[in-house]
Amino acid sequence: MGEFELIRQYFMPLARLHGSHCVVVGPGDDCAVQRVPSGSDLVFSIDTLVEGVHFPLNYRPDYLAWRALAVAASDLAAMGADPSCFTLALTLPEVNESWLRDFARGLGNAAESFGLGLAGGDTTRGPLTLSVQVHGLVEQGSAICRSGAMPGDLIVVSGALGDAGAALEYLDAQPPTADEQFVLEQYHQPQPRLKLGVALRHLATAAIDVSDGLLADLNHILEASSVGASIERTRIPISPALTRLKGSAATEYALHAGDDYELCATIPEASWENAPQLLKQQFTVIGVIEPTPGLRLDGTAVMSESAAVGFDHFRR
Amino acid sequence: MGEFELIRQYFMPLARLHGSHCVVVGPGDDCAVQRVPSGSDLVFSIDTLVEGVHFPLNYRPDYLAWRALAVAASDLAAMGADPSCFTLALTLPEVNESWLRDFARGLGNAAESFGLGLAGGDTTRGPLTLSVQVHGLVEQGSAICRSGAMPGDLIVVSGALGDAGAALEYLDAQPPTADEQFVLEQYHQPQPRLKLGVALRHLATAAIDVSDGLLADLNHILEASSVGASIERTRIPISPALTRLKGSAATEYALHAGDDYELCATIPEASWENAPQLLKQQFTVIGVIEPTPGLRLDGTAVMSESAAVGFDHFRR
Repeated sequence: MGEFELIRQYFMPLARLHGSHCVVVGPGDDCAVQRVPSGSDLVFSIDTLVEGVHFPLNYRPDYLAWRALAVAASDLAAMGADPSCFTLALTLPEVNESWLRDFARGLGNAAESFGLGLAGGDTTRGPLTLSVQVHGLVEQGSAICRSGAMPGDLIVVSGALGDAGAALEYLDAQPPTADEQFVLEQYHQPQPRLKLGVALRHLATAAIDVSDGLLADLNHILEASSVGASIERTRIPISPALTRLKGSAATEYALHAGDDYELCATIPEASWENAPQLLKQQFTVIGVIEPTPGLRLDGTAVMSESAAVGFDHFRR
Repeated sequence: MGEFELIRQYFMPLARLHGSHCVVVGPGDDCAVQRVPSGSDLVFSIDTLVEGVHFPLNYRPDYLAWRALAVAASDLAAMGADPSCFTLALTLPEVNESWLRDFARGLGNAAESFGLGLAGGDTTRGPLTLSVQVHGLVEQGSAICRSGAMPGDLIVVSGALGDAGAALEYLDAQPPTADEQFVLEQYHQPQPRLKLGVALRHLATAAIDVSDGLLADLNHILEASSVGASIERTRIPISPALTRLKGSAATEYALHAGDDYELCATIPEASWENAPQLLKQQFTVIGVIEPTPGLRLDGTAVMSESAAVGFDHFRR
């Protein structure tokens, strides 16, 4: 079976899933066409996953597809955008129909869960690599950037941090314990915080998703906003499973490890006080933005080199 | 020097080149933001180039950058879209500053030549692979699809075909002859027919760019439009250089070889007669759309297998 037949068979159903998302022309033409509603801005991001670099060799194709779409969708969450559609550039070493079937199933589950329709793509032969570009929509001018944090803003994070980073140690566990299984699920099937991101619109002054580690990602906000921050170690949200697995070292995973795809945002104190209780329950206040540049953890300056380690793929 | 510094140094100037193209938030945040003018549709396409598959090993980085952007921009031309901006997902085996500098220079030249501003991207470590997604704009509903060809429409192609395909045989020529040099330039620095694509809007009923070979690509139009076609071998436009290099075999390159990035379009005869002379000079009429399915070359049916050979990356 040739490339086009394979693509049609496995990927075209994903295009039909979300035909309502303004995609006027879907896969199969030279380009896709999206009708962006008047008054909306288009928000988009491209992310690449390379075998052996961003995911293990012989990684389960359904997990891979989910992770690829989740990683990209998480960037939409960080901008407060409503998910719309995506393109997939898939490079494969060989035609393996059972692999493609499992991959398409994982991609379909993720696409449906995140509300993203497949708009187009490209399939080529080569070392296993995926690039996913996601499209979202926000009211004109209301995308949440990294650059708006102001002194006095509270720093909040969603969910719990460090699970996915710790999970890397248990990838080969046979069988994993219940706690190991819990953190492994955070790694294999991360949940982009799309609804939380939309809820932060008109509330957060800045936001980022925690893909490279809390310190590294918070540092991006501080640099883009030309501010500093103080955060407290004891406030960092840690899952009970991670605490049981790693004891007092759990916080190190939460500070330095990546792949959590939780949101870190800055919110003016008055806005936070008036925010709906249901929203506040989803976030933990971990510190405050300050005028003095630099990031302080329990009062001690965090070397920017240390904060930076997580995010530089070339150094990994 | 780390990834982010490298990207900033070499790629950020490309973001500033075309800040006017509706990019409200450029590289450096979680997402880019594009303001699509009211009344316009967003047209987009993603294309991947893999080392050793789509370009030779140790290929010149400035040529590679140009080709990557040209290949993607050519899809905008085929839809009749005005170029707007692009994202680049670049996977590199190592940090090589001189490579990056040359690559960025080639990318900048192409971006300026095509009118595309860099809106965002991702840089990762791995086997040399590029995915480029281009964004263009058309008046709502006026994108030229593959599916609109009607019996009686004339089939036209821009420029001359076959040069880039023949060039593959001269990649190592030391030094190339003038004719070899001419076809090599068509391969190394293809010119997406963006202005011609825009001129075809409201004129062509269907269009495609010739990336996989004329027969293969025309066949895509026929299948999408549920029509057939007859074309004539002697009408296929061939450059004098290719004729001198290949003699009577030149037409085979024009029919089967890819990488030309010329446009193939279908136009109602009356519209063609009334089209501006300046436009008509840029195209050659090579045949006509017919109601009977299938593609006929000088009256003989072209096996769809033969037409299909060019476009299936998995079979290359």
